[in-house]
Amino acid sequence: MAPRKQQEIFDATLRLVAERGYDGLTVEGVAERSGVNKTTIYRWWPSKAALLGAALVEADVLGFEPPDTGSLRGDLVALVESVVRLLTEPPGRDVAVAALGAAVRHPELDARRFFADRFARERQIFERAARRGELAGTADPMLVVDLLAGAVWLRAVFRGLPLNEDFASRAVSAVLDGVRAPAATP
Amino acid sequence: MAPRKQQEIFDATLRLVAERGYDGLTVEGVAERSGVNKTTIYRWWPSKAALLGAALVEADVLGFEPPDTGSLRGDLVALVESVVRLLTEPPGRDVAVAALGAAVRHPELDARRFFADRFARERQIFERAARRGELAGTADPMLVVDLLAGAVWLRAVFRGLPLNEDFASRAVSAVLDGVRAPAATP
Repeated sequence: MAPRKQQEIFDATLRLVAERGYDGLTVEGVAERSGVNKTTIYRWWPSKAALLGAALVEADVLGFEPPDTGSLRGDLVALVESVVRLLTEPPGRDVAVAALGAAVRHPELDARRFFADRFARERQIFERAARRGELAGTADPMLVVDLLAGAVWLRAVFRGLPLNEDFASRAVSAVLDGVRAPAATP
Repeated sequence: MAPRKQQEIFDATLRLVAERGYDGLTVEGVAERSGVNKTTIYRWWPSKAALLGAALVEADVLGFEPPDTGSLRGDLVALVESVVRLLTEPPGRDVAVAALGAAVRHPELDARRFFADRFARERQIFERAARRGELAGTADPMLVVDLLAGAVWLRAVFRGLPLNEDFASRAVSAVLDGVRAPAATP
């Protein structure tokens, strides 16, 4: 299938799940919205779960390039800011919240691919930081990503609280520098 | 209403949402399961969203006492371990994942009360730590909770990865001590 046609199908899929939720998403609806024949869509993706899973990983609208600012701190602040935008601004917000909310209840939707794919790219931030000597030898890159991205999800989606402009830099400082009092027993 | 009866209604509500999801939860179903008249339930909670919201905050099964181990590190490790249990072991897992997954799509369910209620209690951990001089003056208690609890959610629910036995202590060390190389420029 032509890449542009594929992106139109992914776009229609993501817009439909944002508008109607996962339960309201159908391959028929995607066919209608994208102007692609239903049987063609089924030939590529055997179910709506497979289609949405592919859209989450491959759609340009959710595309993600890891930042490369020259420092670990700068990269992580940019990374958190991109997660904040994803979870608070349309259209990403509606797509991410609907799709990830659905993934919780529908394991066949396999959100793990979305996170694994992102992490494969985020890992570069830590590889560069390690080469620059910025990262403690014991640091676990996936744990750092989970702390930071998890905090955005909890604050923005579950608490429904606004994220101040300095949220990203405060979160990154907490994880890079630690929140323990300097004089306290380790 | 007698507290015990109320707990029976909350239990029925949480078990139903875990079994059937939010869409399958009905006040009729709760009435049947708990043996309490439907009109009585409606007199106390005007909708299923109100009922589930109250159950999340007031049910004994989700009850939460902040740990008090004598140190900030010990308290935070115990706190993370309790979130891990909540999100990975039945019955808490099914309840929390179904209810919080639903809260994402149904703002009227108001999960904010659940998190605000928990934070009011978690705050004690940081007040004691501040008195003991263990916490940096700039540290933001809610941010620390969001980093740690968010990481558990991301790892266990979204990534679907097992949490090793030392996950809690590693996550707490990252946030207390920081992951920056000691020699790196701050």
